[in-house]
Amino acid sequence: MKDPILDNIKTISIIGGTGKEGKGLAYRWAKAGYQIIIGSRSNEKAETAAAAVRELLDGVGVVVGKENAAAAQEGDIVVLTVPFAAHVSMLEYLKPYLQGKTLIDVTVPLVPPKVTRVQMPPAGSAGLEAQQVLGEGVAVVTAFQNISYENLLEGEDVDCDILVCGSSKEARETVLALVKEAGLIGWDAGPLENSVVVEGLTSILIGINKRYGVTSSGIRITGVPLK
Amino acid sequence: MKDPILDNIKTISIIGGTGKEGKGLAYRWAKAGYQIIIGSRSNEKAETAAAAVRELLDGVGVVVGKENAAAAQEGDIVVLTVPFAAHVSMLEYLKPYLQGKTLIDVTVPLVPPKVTRVQMPPAGSAGLEAQQVLGEGVAVVTAFQNISYENLLEGEDVDCDILVCGSSKEARETVLALVKEAGLIGWDAGPLENSVVVEGLTSILIGINKRYGVTSSGIRITGVPLK
Repeated sequence: MKDPILDNIKTISIIGGTGKEGKGLAYRWAKAGYQIIIGSRSNEKAETAAAAVRELLDGVGVVVGKENAAAAQEGDIVVLTVPFAAHVSMLEYLKPYLQGKTLIDVTVPLVPPKVTRVQMPPAGSAGLEAQQVLGEGVAVVTAFQNISYENLLEGEDVDCDILVCGSSKEARETVLALVKEAGLIGWDAGPLENSVVVEGLTSILIGINKRYGVTSSGIRITGVPLK
Repeated sequence: MKDPILDNIKTISIIGGTGKEGKGLAYRWAKAGYQIIIGSRSNEKAETAAAAVRELLDGVGVVVGKENAAAAQEGDIVVLTVPFAAHVSMLEYLKPYLQGKTLIDVTVPLVPPKVTRVQMPPAGSAGLEAQQVLGEGVAVVTAFQNISYENLLEGEDVDCDILVCGSSKEARETVLALVKEAGLIGWDAGPLENSVVVEGLTSILIGINKRYGVTSSGIRITGVPLK
């Protein structure tokens, strides 16, 4: 049964949804019955990405494309998945449209060429940077940084858990419910200060992918019986 | 078969080995045939802890207790597992005895009372702090921060992996071989800068223990076939 915490969430907007990670999330939530708006800098690119997700869905679900500002405005909850170089400028652009909402920030501060080395911005992490730019009127939650596109397109038994950080416990619980709706296992990983761990874990997993010759290493939390 | 990288390692000294984590590691390596020196501020406390580990071992293995300086001096490799408040002062004390060796730092920078919140020292992590204090003459590797004492005392199928960080690839490989000798699964998690992730993960796991009512949550790396 759907968690009542999600009663007011019908539309999920995914900013940067033209990238692989964004498309993968769009795919899973559209399949679960949410209306998805994919945001991009141009209507045309957004619509092309939306069409690609609709094709993956084989006719199920509602996925449309819009310019980023309209996407952010119309989403009941907004997901941000952009390359780190565009993180601050995109947040500044979106700031007026996000007030009063929850933002799920999927951004990882990868700094090429050394993407296997943890390198955090001065704020401490991408999540803390987002909160700094957006101010207290937006509940920033970080999640989905460790799961690969390939895993997102898989079925029910995805072998990667989702760690959810954020300063608001209610916002964390909303996102945890959306993780479940996406058919994934999520864990409350505590306050936004902890996001450095989850973001940095992505660099470690990229390093493991390279060293061990795989493409989709992930993590599982152990020692907790699943209900 | 034992990795030839371990040919020169017969004695493992565990500084702070009177704590639970240190005793757990002593137990596993003693069982694997290593001579263990448990270090403490006093010979007497060290010997009491060594006796406790010998009791767990039921007569198998060689475990003795010595004052910290002697322990550090006599170990072919040295493990540090002290409360964070004693980290820097202990490193300064041990510095002359560690030159030319590999130090496995298990320390997690937990800052009471908010131990579920990631809080790193100015150096960036306990591992980077250790390297800063010890200088380039010591190869600092961090490992074992996420595994509980309870898990260390279990048998073969411990449900928690070990992430190993360090600036020297050879030192990481030595420690990965020792992880295997301890009957655990280890992963090369890259340079010492990545240790912030593994140390901080401990705070997240303590939070998960509290929130989900368990005592030994841990992590597993997924998506990599084990050889």
